[in-house]
Amino acid sequence: MAGNTTGDMFRITTFGSSHGKALGAVIDGCPAGLELTREDIQAELERRRPGISNITTTREETDQVEVLSGIFKGKTDGTPIAAIVHNTDIDSSAYEPFKNKPRPGHGDYTWICKYGHYDYLGGGRGSGRVTIGHVIGGAIAKKLLKLLAIKVVSHVTQVGDVKAKHVAYGLIEKYANQNPVRCADQKAAVVMEKKILEAKKEGDSIGGIVETITFGVPAGLGEPVFDKLDADLAKALMGIGAVKGVEIGFGFELGQSTASATNDEYYLDGKHIKTTTNTSGGIIGGISNGMPIVTRIAVKPTPSISIQQKTVDLQKMEETTIKIEGRHDPCICPRLTIVAEAAVAMVLADHLLKAGLINPCKIS
Amino acid sequence: MAGNTTGDMFRITTFGSSHGKALGAVIDGCPAGLELTREDIQAELERRRPGISNITTTREETDQVEVLSGIFKGKTDGTPIAAIVHNTDIDSSAYEPFKNKPRPGHGDYTWICKYGHYDYLGGGRGSGRVTIGHVIGGAIAKKLLKLLAIKVVSHVTQVGDVKAKHVAYGLIEKYANQNPVRCADQKAAVVMEKKILEAKKEGDSIGGIVETITFGVPAGLGEPVFDKLDADLAKALMGIGAVKGVEIGFGFELGQSTASATNDEYYLDGKHIKTTTNTSGGIIGGISNGMPIVTRIAVKPTPSISIQQKTVDLQKMEETTIKIEGRHDPCICPRLTIVAEAAVAMVLADHLLKAGLINPCKIS
Amino acid sequence: MAGNTTGDMFRITTFGSSHGKALGAVIDGCPAGLELTREDIQAELERRRPGISNITTTREETDQVEVLSGIFKGKTDGTPIAAIVHNTDIDSSAYEPFKNKPRPGHGDYTWICKYGHYDYLGGGRGSGRVTIGHVIGGAIAKKLLKLLAIKVVSHVTQVGDVKAKHVAYGLIEKYANQNPVRCADQKAAVVMEKKILEAKKEGDSIGGIVETITFGVPAGLGEPVFDKLDADLAKALMGIGAVKGVEIGFGFELGQSTASATNDEYYLDGKHIKTTTNTSGGIIGGISNGMPIVTRIAVKPTPSISIQQKTVDLQKMEETTIKIEGRHDPCICPRLTIVAEAAVAMVLADHLLKAGLINPCKIS
Amino acid sequence: MAGNTTGDMFRITTFGSSHGKALGAVIDGCPAGLELTREDIQAELERRRPGISNITTTREETDQVEVLSGIFKGKTDGTPIAAIVHNTDIDSSAYEPFKNKPRPGHGDYTWICKYGHYDYLGGGRGSGRVTIGHVIGGAIAKKLLKLLAIKVVSHVTQVGDVKAKHVAYGLIEKYANQNPVRCADQKAAVVMEKKILEAKKEGDSIGGIVETITFGVPAGLGEPVFDKLDADLAKALMGIGAVKGVEIGFGFELGQSTASATNDEYYLDGKHIKTTTNTSGGIIGGISNGMPIVTRIAVKPTPSISIQQKTVDLQKMEETTIKIEGRHDPCICPRLTIVAEAAVAMVLADHLLKAGLINPCKIS
Repeated sequence: MAGNTTGDMFRITTFGSSHGKALGAVIDGCPAGLELTREDIQAELERRRPGISNITTTREETDQVEVLSGIFKGKTDGTPIAAIVHNTDIDSSAYEPFKNKPRPGHGDYTWICKYGHYDYLGGGRGSGRVTIGHVIGGAIAKKLLKLLAIKVVSHVTQVGDVKAKHVAYGLIEKYANQNPVRCADQKAAVVMEKKILEAKKEGDSIGGIVETITFGVPAGLGEPVFDKLDADLAKALMGIGAVKGVEIGFGFELGQSTASATNDEYYLDGKHIKTTTNTSGGIIGGISNGMPIVTRIAVKPTPSISIQQKTVDLQKMEETTIKIEGRHDPCICPRLTIVAEAAVAMVLADHLLKAGLINPCKIS
Repeated sequence: MAGNTTGDMFRITTFGSSHGKALGAVIDGCPAGLELTREDIQAELERRRPGISNITTTREETDQVEVLSGIFKGKTDGTPIAAIVHNTDIDSSAYEPFKNKPRPGHGDYTWICKYGHYDYLGGGRGSGRVTIGHVIGGAIAKKLLKLLAIKVVSHVTQVGDVKAKHVAYGLIEKYANQNPVRCADQKAAVVMEKKILEAKKEGDSIGGIVETITFGVPAGLGEPVFDKLDADLAKALMGIGAVKGVEIGFGFELGQSTASATNDEYYLDGKHIKTTTNTSGGIIGGISNGMPIVTRIAVKPTPSISIQQKTVDLQKMEETTIKIEGRHDPCICPRLTIVAEAAVAMVLADHLLKAGLINPCKIS
Repeated sequence: MAGNTTGDMFRITTFGSSHGKALGAVIDGCPAGLELTREDIQAELERRRPGISNITTTREETDQVEVLSGIFKGKTDGTPIAAIVHNTDIDSSAYEPFKNKPRPGHGDYTWICKYGHYDYLGGGRGSGRVTIGHVIGGAIAKKLLKLLAIKVVSHVTQVGDVKAKHVAYGLIEKYANQNPVRCADQKAAVVMEKKILEAKKEGDSIGGIVETITFGVPAGLGEPVFDKLDADLAKALMGIGAVKGVEIGFGFELGQSTASATNDEYYLDGKHIKTTTNTSGGIIGGISNGMPIVTRIAVKPTPSISIQQKTVDLQKMEETTIKIEGRHDPCICPRLTIVAEAAVAMVLADHLLKAGLINPCKIS
Repeated sequence: MAGNTTGDMFRITTFGSSHGKALGAVIDGCPAGLELTREDIQAELERRRPGISNITTTREETDQVEVLSGIFKGKTDGTPIAAIVHNTDIDSSAYEPFKNKPRPGHGDYTWICKYGHYDYLGGGRGSGRVTIGHVIGGAIAKKLLKLLAIKVVSHVTQVGDVKAKHVAYGLIEKYANQNPVRCADQKAAVVMEKKILEAKKEGDSIGGIVETITFGVPAGLGEPVFDKLDADLAKALMGIGAVKGVEIGFGFELGQSTASATNDEYYLDGKHIKTTTNTSGGIIGGISNGMPIVTRIAVKPTPSISIQQKTVDLQKMEETTIKIEGRHDPCICPRLTIVAEAAVAMVLADHLLKAGLINPCKIS
């Protein structure tokens, strides 16, 4: 069934595969009158782009975006914004051996089960390259959020067993931008990078955790009972390839706690009502409470590794082994920070429109 | 915005609040010809019902369900199934003091921010009683799953710092049914129950973890890119009140792992393709792979506690304190097992219909 | 597939059948703070109720509505409003003969094809009684529209070959309320009533046309390209049982016209921009232009007639004949006026919310 | 709000405007394994293309389609099919005078009211060129329908006051293809063409009626209560620019009839159940009955005419006049036949998937 569209009022539809002609996104529901340029989108794609450090894949893509519609004289006009990125550095040869031998940890096997006829080149539409669509949508969503002074920041808080120390909220973005791991704890970043390079050297890969914090979200976003803000965030984040867990606020730690220790109590900060702690991560009863929204995702190690693995030859129906020699990220967390930001930004844009906090027709 | 409907082909709409006249659900999209009785639904409600052990709330509700439509001569007829449960044991007096004093950890404050005019009695529609709607829907979904020999089982794996040991999959349901905590590790269950009673005695509450395992799901469920099976499960589970984290398979552990250690390798079990491990929890690339589907939710301690807490009087706009003396669950995990099963069952029913594995019009 | 929910922001889900326990509706997305009573809904149901004149069915239903949720202290609270009407005057005996003999013009045959197991009593969910759900939703939508001084008025403009003359807009409601046909042209109404009674006497039924005019709709409602206001109105109106045609403005007459004769030209009425004519029926390019919105529906004669008709016995697979001796409306147009108003009102409420002209969370 | 996506299982999203870079469509939900080439789509675009006769606009567009994704080795692979058409023959100069002077009959005024910032060049997204998206989607839908031997045929049955005589169903497509008006009654076609050329000469335009007949649709399509097949067809057809009325079967004629004269009676044709007449146009109770599906649309005269018309200068807020000298179709009906076919084909593809008559994942 059609599963490539998401969002109710800020709605994105994406298309394209790793080795196809182009990838892209159509964003529908963005109000008219928003200042938007091709460069706004390109800037976010640059942050996601491969090949910008020694810990990413060596596939070289400049990922230049072309905007086909929806911007008129420098501003959105309320019609769908279609934007595409052409694939250029395609090397499909490496994938032919895996045509009938599903790679462990990848979607090959499940896509074959579901669709029969399946694009196995570069992971097809299961490739991480599909997140180009997310980032295009995220770039536009961020422009909307900016109107309300809302800011979304992601950073890597764990790689393998290396955990980052807590960094003051105001410094996270700045510090995370200063190292290729995108970890705000600069000391931990050094160790993380070493870990990643070790994994790379061994033909292995390594997982981690990405945290996203959103500042400035007003109270009142989220639609109970089913379309709660945290439910929609969980869907958007879990839907990113390689993500296997999502937490809001203190998340799994709350499973070990008592209410007396973790309930967020209210106090007055001038005329503003705030909570003394933020274990809830800014969402209570499915609705934002005005505190920073904190989400965390568990990212599995990228499954493509050059170490021998067992699989089954589906044509011969016999067990066999494979080694994957393509170009891959030894740790996808740094690049996923941008995707997580995009996912969160789009959910928030959607809910701001749903809550009537942004006019759905025109920016005024 | 309308947020009380979920599912595309197996679609549920719920309504009702804690102290209103009735709660209920409308299930639309269930194919015709499914044998279904009022008792099928009542049986699941009995499992969720309060007052059936010493570790649940003392509110006494018999939760008798009445089916208004959709069943004709013992079978569904393809039209919406509406079912309601009347509230009977209502004691609203305890809630008047909190009218303008939002209870920490509850949705009071955020609902006021969003809606202004708000039903604060018994938590209104933010109450755990709204999960009656989930359970009604889950009961019907389970009947559909049964046609394909799919079974959903939940159990409590952690309460506070007490963690259950691994129990063989085949024994979980049986063992979990033998203690009020619904923990399959019978020894741990005793300690957990003690922990819960301690919290209760102190007027406190305690969190935990609920695991849900689904057996017999065929490969091919899930709609990339946005409506992946794990994404939809994450949304459904995170949307349950008190849930602050969701994991699929090994979840957050994968953030500490390497691919060589955790990639699920394929092997042949007769003519069936299986994986040697199941770190992915039965879902790869957003699509089921035929292995058991494993999800885990972090459940925060129920926020209603009789210990004094700080809050703000919204009318006087001054800081104050409250103590909540109502009737509450000291640990909601045991009762959430049924809700988690319902949430998972409904997502699977929806995806079975989407994947064409159940005929959408009639059971044949 | 689930087809009993409609609307994006003002969303209605209905359930129930002609001879089942109850019929009802759940309205989700109505903002909090709207003054609403059970009587507001009952008043609209009274207008639709059978047995209030000699030209309606003799089935006697008082159609008393019970509101189960969503109203708190006299106002909506932003949660779903569930309302039900119990069936009381059920006489199923008349329907057993038709169990396997589909009645011409009714949905019997198509429902059997689709669902197999099918509620054939009183037309099941194909009965006109399901419009009780529409009217419940319409009553609430009208309360919302009233906040913006928007008024929806329907009247019968044709019965058989009797056509009503044009009546000044301001008089339509008043005059239509003065005769059982609900025709604003009082002279034509007399002839129409005679026509209907003749058909009734012969065991036959007769079709007609119902026009709905909505006053006070602001410019800007409608979402191009697919969710245009006229497209949504067409869907809502064509979805009413017995409706086989929908026109906006001059409708089919425009197929015979030239642009020079029918283009609506603009002029200034003080500071307001209006059109000299309204052939477009208030909608241009899929968006309202501030002029009255005019829709017209073609209503087929109710198919239940006591004249002998040919059909097929589906069990014996042989041709046969039937005569339908139940209780039926000889002309459904008068009662459909209320249903058409409801359908239009709900579409407008949905689009007012979509366009941000009503705050989606709370009435302010 | 986002209104550029339609369909539940066969879902289309379109984008682009008359003078923008490109127009296009993303089709999501098409099962994998369908043979599909760029040429399949191009062939339908050729039928819609302007400049292929003396009764269409003189804008010259070759409308060459480029497929960006979703086809792998000659077959669909279950992922979204994105296809675009670049605009080439753009002449924006003619539109500057109308920047603040809304053209009567066009969406200019309503789009300004709704969006404020608005693309007024060539009608922007309100232009007939947006139906390129429909035709792309229709081309793919038709390929799906072909698998079930379903065929959709449109023809012009009226232009101004010239009405075509009834032509045997089997001859309509062949005859309609033999004249530029696409009218199956060849004699009427000659008169219609003359009428159109007269209007063209006078700088005027003329309306008409387009009928669409679909052969081979199985019984069982349509989802009561709100998503009936006729309701969805009405929405799809009314949503096409210039359409102001929709009929199913005998449509408005039924408003003048009695049930005894128009109820479709059943008979046995061998083992098949058919109706002796088809006044219902193949849909009863919102569900297809296996007879040909017949829809008719009222098409208003294209509003762009070179005759002087009154309008208002929105900047100066004073009344004024305009003459439109652009390139326009004097009668859009012939070209709308292809768009109507596309709209109907997409609705049917969607409902075939909903009814489980096409496997949603793969063609088998």
